Amino acid sequence: MRKIHVIGIGAGDPDQLTLQAVRALRSTDVFFILEKGEVKADLTGLRRDMLDAHVPEGTYRVVEARDPERDRSAGGAAYSPAVGDWRSARADIYERLITEELGEEQTGAFLVWGDPSLYDSTLGILEEVLERGAVAFDYDVVPGISSVSALVARHRTGLNRVARPVQITTGRRLAEGFPEGVDDVVVMLDAHQTFRQYAQEDLDIYWGAYIGTPDEILASGPIAEAAPRIERLRAEARERKGWIMDTYLLRRNPRG
Amino acid sequence: MRKIHVIGIGAGDPDQLTLQAVRALRSTDVFFILEKGEVKADLTGLRRDMLDAHVPEGTYRVVEARDPERDRSAGGAAYSPAVGDWRSARADIYERLITEELGEEQTGAFLVWGDPSLYDSTLGILEEVLERGAVAFDYDVVPGISSVSALVARHRTGLNRVARPVQITTGRRLAEGFPEGVDDVVVMLDAHQTFRQYAQEDLDIYWGAYIGTPDEILASGPIAEAAPRIERLRAEARERKGWIMDTYLLRRNPRG
Repeated sequence: MRKIHVIGIGAGDPDQLTLQAVRALRSTDVFFILEKGEVKADLTGLRRDMLDAHVPEGTYRVVEARDPERDRSAGGAAYSPAVGDWRSARADIYERLITEELGEEQTGAFLVWGDPSLYDSTLGILEEVLERGAVAFDYDVVPGISSVSALVARHRTGLNRVARPVQITTGRRLAEGFPEGVDDVVVMLDAHQTFRQYAQEDLDIYWGAYIGTPDEILASGPIAEAAPRIERLRAEARERKGWIMDTYLLRRNPRG
Repeated sequence: MRKIHVIGIGAGDPDQLTLQAVRALRSTDVFFILEKGEVKADLTGLRRDMLDAHVPEGTYRVVEARDPERDRSAGGAAYSPAVGDWRSARADIYERLITEELGEEQTGAFLVWGDPSLYDSTLGILEEVLERGAVAFDYDVVPGISSVSALVARHRTGLNRVARPVQITTGRRLAEGFPEGVDDVVVMLDAHQTFRQYAQEDLDIYWGAYIGTPDEILASGPIAEAAPRIERLRAEARERKGWIMDTYLLRRNPRG
């Protein structure tokens, strides 16, 4: 039976690999790396460096495939269907990769930035491939350090306050309003700096980009003061590198 | 200047240590281990095994101290003040340990189960010690695999659904009602199996105890069917081991 590891490889610092992840890398015959349509050569390079550092040369193959373009222009209500189409297109590719590139007795792996449980589609796509029934395989999941954990570690703060909840959400959701019933909110996938919408409120922000990599940038403070600073840092970094990956924690009523 | 690492050591599986955590362990002169009043010899043993496995003998000292008892009898509104008193008592101990057991040029470490950012008091206590001003030190945080990440990895599911938020909360909060605006809720620190309160709703539960250890137990399914099963498993395990650490994800309207 074919076997697949879905391996969380941490938020960008190669030292954030777990021993379990290293073990899984070493037991893999074929690594599947999906290139984004956007230029993220840095990220692909980081993954190759991890393999070079931890897996003996000659014991594995890397198969690269082109990730289907995701229609990010579809706004509002159309978001989920667009994701659905994109997921099906991706399932086609995964099915082909597993069927054609992985021998019946071999082990393949998908390397996932951060933790495979947070805003990552790999598990859903593998389930879809299994449901189609064209190819059978067993898979397991190796948890990784998420960008959320890495962010707050760098800021030396917690995700929640004593006995209080924390919510993890998207920029799109935050644009609809500050979540009910929580004072601590982590925002991911925010291309529009939605935090600016809350710049007049009693909030602290803890922001980070390219966390754990040599390009890491951190900024924090009361949001009224920090928001323009983050906007500037973000624009400069995006200009310089051509892409940005950032995450932030908003803490309401921080001194209350 | 004294230096302190706050090291997330994962949810229980020693292979969930990151390479960064191993490096931090190896650069530590003095490990501070606080024993709980309750019997958790298993947990202390696991920590000692990690040190034996990764740090050369003779390069470090272990200092054990007794954790102050936490007044868990204080109910409802009294919860936070009780936590505050307990935190101050703990700060006294940390201050003494750092002052008396750590040389001016040495590095100490606190080992935290899971990730130091989730429902752990170490960072808050160190900040309190620094604010008191009796001893100065620099500290950093090494993120760890949380029991939340480990739980969903073992169940091979995500924390959130596509483009949707997830909330991490406590059993006490869940008892006050299902959180607003989210369909996926992770519950920690639930001594009262609060999930039973929702057994008639359209929810799936993904439950785990002693995650990542040889004693690990997993159970999942539609809550009406799974809740009594989990109750039984939990009671048996608690009886057998004398203590239990468990976590679960509730997913509302799972097939909707």
